[in-house]
Amino acid sequence: MLEEIEKITREVLKKITPARADRARLEKASRTLESKVSAVCAEFGVDAIVRLEGSVAKDTWLREDPDIDVFVRLPTSVPRKQLGEIGLKVAKKATQGQEQIERFAEHPYLETFIDNTRVNIVPCYNSMPSEWLSATDRTPYHTDYVNRRLSKPLRKEVRLLKKFMKGIQVYGAEIKVGGFSGYLCELLVLHFGGFVRTLQAFSQHMPRRTVDIEGYYANRQRELDLLFKELLVVVDPVDQARNVASAVHPQQLHSFAAASRAFLQTPSIEFFYPLKMQPLSVEELHNTIADRGSSLVFLTCDKVQAVPDVLWGQLYRTQKALRKQLQLNDFKVLRDAVWSEENAIFTIFVFELESRILSPAKKHVGPPLELLKECDRFLAKCSDNSSVVAGPFIEGGRWVVEVRRKFTDAADLLRSKLKSGGRDMGVAELIAENLRKDFLILIGEDVTEHYIYNEGFAGFLTEFLSGKPFWLEKPCYFSR
Amino acid sequence: MLEEIEKITREVLKKITPARADRARLEKASRTLESKVSAVCAEFGVDAIVRLEGSVAKDTWLREDPDIDVFVRLPTSVPRKQLGEIGLKVAKKATQGQEQIERFAEHPYLETFIDNTRVNIVPCYNSMPSEWLSATDRTPYHTDYVNRRLSKPLRKEVRLLKKFMKGIQVYGAEIKVGGFSGYLCELLVLHFGGFVRTLQAFSQHMPRRTVDIEGYYANRQRELDLLFKELLVVVDPVDQARNVASAVHPQQLHSFAAASRAFLQTPSIEFFYPLKMQPLSVEELHNTIADRGSSLVFLTCDKVQAVPDVLWGQLYRTQKALRKQLQLNDFKVLRDAVWSEENAIFTIFVFELESRILSPAKKHVGPPLELLKECDRFLAKCSDNSSVVAGPFIEGGRWVVEVRRKFTDAADLLRSKLKSGGRDMGVAELIAENLRKDFLILIGEDVTEHYIYNEGFAGFLTEFLSGKPFWLEKPCYFSR
Repeated sequence: MLEEIEKITREVLKKITPARADRARLEKASRTLESKVSAVCAEFGVDAIVRLEGSVAKDTWLREDPDIDVFVRLPTSVPRKQLGEIGLKVAKKATQGQEQIERFAEHPYLETFIDNTRVNIVPCYNSMPSEWLSATDRTPYHTDYVNRRLSKPLRKEVRLLKKFMKGIQVYGAEIKVGGFSGYLCELLVLHFGGFVRTLQAFSQHMPRRTVDIEGYYANRQRELDLLFKELLVVVDPVDQARNVASAVHPQQLHSFAAASRAFLQTPSIEFFYPLKMQPLSVEELHNTIADRGSSLVFLTCDKVQAVPDVLWGQLYRTQKALRKQLQLNDFKVLRDAVWSEENAIFTIFVFELESRILSPAKKHVGPPLELLKECDRFLAKCSDNSSVVAGPFIEGGRWVVEVRRKFTDAADLLRSKLKSGGRDMGVAELIAENLRKDFLILIGEDVTEHYIYNEGFAGFLTEFLSGKPFWLEKPCYFSR
Repeated sequence: MLEEIEKITREVLKKITPARADRARLEKASRTLESKVSAVCAEFGVDAIVRLEGSVAKDTWLREDPDIDVFVRLPTSVPRKQLGEIGLKVAKKATQGQEQIERFAEHPYLETFIDNTRVNIVPCYNSMPSEWLSATDRTPYHTDYVNRRLSKPLRKEVRLLKKFMKGIQVYGAEIKVGGFSGYLCELLVLHFGGFVRTLQAFSQHMPRRTVDIEGYYANRQRELDLLFKELLVVVDPVDQARNVASAVHPQQLHSFAAASRAFLQTPSIEFFYPLKMQPLSVEELHNTIADRGSSLVFLTCDKVQAVPDVLWGQLYRTQKALRKQLQLNDFKVLRDAVWSEENAIFTIFVFELESRILSPAKKHVGPPLELLKECDRFLAKCSDNSSVVAGPFIEGGRWVVEVRRKFTDAADLLRSKLKSGGRDMGVAELIAENLRKDFLILIGEDVTEHYIYNEGFAGFLTEFLSGKPFWLEKPCYFSR
């Protein structure tokens, strides 16, 4: 099996390792940019250290998507409020005449392109370790640490791990993905000693895993356990108070563990290069929906305009609130998901329910007999209540009644709860604003129009209906 | 309120206290029987102590249903196997010419009638306390204890408590009822000091209550707690190893607690003398069933021929097994009950379900990711399984699939499981025998024929549909 894996990784490395020409091109572009930014700093009288950081500086970038990150390290005397402002001013001047996009992380930074290569010009403080003033202050130290520790052969391994994670869609710390950052990949390879070894470790899944490369918590495991609550903890070698894996959502950790196990059992290049998914035809879509017997309920509204991390934070929060509301009203949610896309005009939430329609009658369990006053109040409330169908009667030491449900149709429930936006039930602010203007509840095949209209959504829904990760798709996947 | 209660209890006492003539008649009948049984014993050369026991001997009987219990205490030298045999022989000879019914408790005894009064002739051993050889050996000691301790005024209180318990249907230790025995009523009145005081105590319901009149476990509460697991423990004054309340089903304890509280809050003679329940008309029945929106599923078969305690043991066991089977298959059971009657030709189980029909799709939760081998097996099983609708996917750190349900109709489920009797799923033996011969599943209005045919069943179903204990019926029951 290891031979098979080696054959595959060789093939992958051929594709993802930057060629000499790529390197040269990027190096030149970086140096030019560095000088330009430095010059502008001098011109503006800004006392800054300008340096290339990130995957290009560490030589762990993938040939297919280089990202030039130039950091402008400002003196700690610069007020916090002016950091972004100065950074933007310098960056804009240095890239004058090029496309410029203002982005926001903790503070604004500038995105631009040189020869189709994305370039980020990011301001930060030249602060000392453990005296961080902004989140990006650590980045130069990360670059230094990795360059000092990561051997040349291991850089290949990092590339493989990154590409594998991209393939199975767990790469990237942005909120939409909630996955593994590039720096995290570097640390994992450093700690486990390679790509396959990292996969081997994670394939032996454990509910919680802590990695402490520098041994900051040697003999203080309990302290580490109390400090960090996440399922995966990788103590930052440049900051013992920070978990590099804090953005990794449990779902993504689990996907990585399961995919690692699957790859080691049945290696295939498709983990790195997934086949393009073919959306179902409309007829197939209708058959699939009809065949499974569950109910698909869609909620769609205009797309919210916001930067991705804000947008996806709001979308996920709203998805959770809607799911909870359905469950509170006894609908059995089999699965749920949300779809949105940069250039789409709509956003769509999908809920697969066991059944959209519930029986009108349900059991309502009241207080236990020993809570005397509560029982009196419960019985009084039941005695002139038209929603009571049977009882009150005693069951298991509690008063119980059968009552008529308020909502027997999930679509009615959502319509009723969302007509004023749904802020009170936890819908995120920007989404609630859009819902208040207008929304649509679609049931099953009603979604066809949206499906035909947007290929991205069609692909998403096809994947959702299958439910299976692509790397489990092979029919005889598990050899006996 | 206490005045109101006194007025009611005075009225009840007038009806339930035996008149002088009743006493005289019963005393005469008892003496005659005692002598006859003694004479037969002498004739057969049986060295027995013959004595009147039970409520008549203790003067705690209700005028409406006197029960003469004559006990034949045999020497402990008589072999255990012959106890019933000798008892029956003696009893039959002594009541020759009268209607004779052989009954079984722990051993056979004879039931007969003198002037429409039920008479039981019961054999037991003349054993010493704590050297019991049969369950009935304690009875003479119970008689002695109560006669020694219970004052004349308290006997009235016992009558009230018994009648109250009869009214709210928690009186009687037989399996069908699972309620309070006469002796238990006597001990409760003795301990709490009266009828109202007993109700006051139980109306302040507590999850578990222990009563130890003779203080056998004084300062040994922990030992008492370990010895007896029931929710109500009343240590037998003549046997510290026995809980007099062991036959009290939690449901009946709870009913008594709740009814006690209701009576003390709103006293009414109806607790003692419930109004006769009027079965719904067929039209009302149909409306009630249609209106509530739940599904009623009936299972009916020929009545099992067995003595009541055996019959009801089997019926309850079967009811529980059927409920469990429905629940295992995801049907939400709102309530369930079983009906049978001495002279009926059928027995009927009723299940009120939220819905008789379930969605075809459901979530099936597999092993957590850290159980590696189990996960491999689970995935292998799912990969060529036609019942899988979607997935496997990971959720909350476990593999999960959506599968098609085996049974989506509760009627189909029952039909399929019961066609061979259902012994394997826990249906009791005698019921399974009858089911194997023939049974019928009735849905909702299908039950009409049985409803019209048997008034007893009609009354039962009317009460079941209401669900409310009759003593909660008053519309403005709970005063604010």
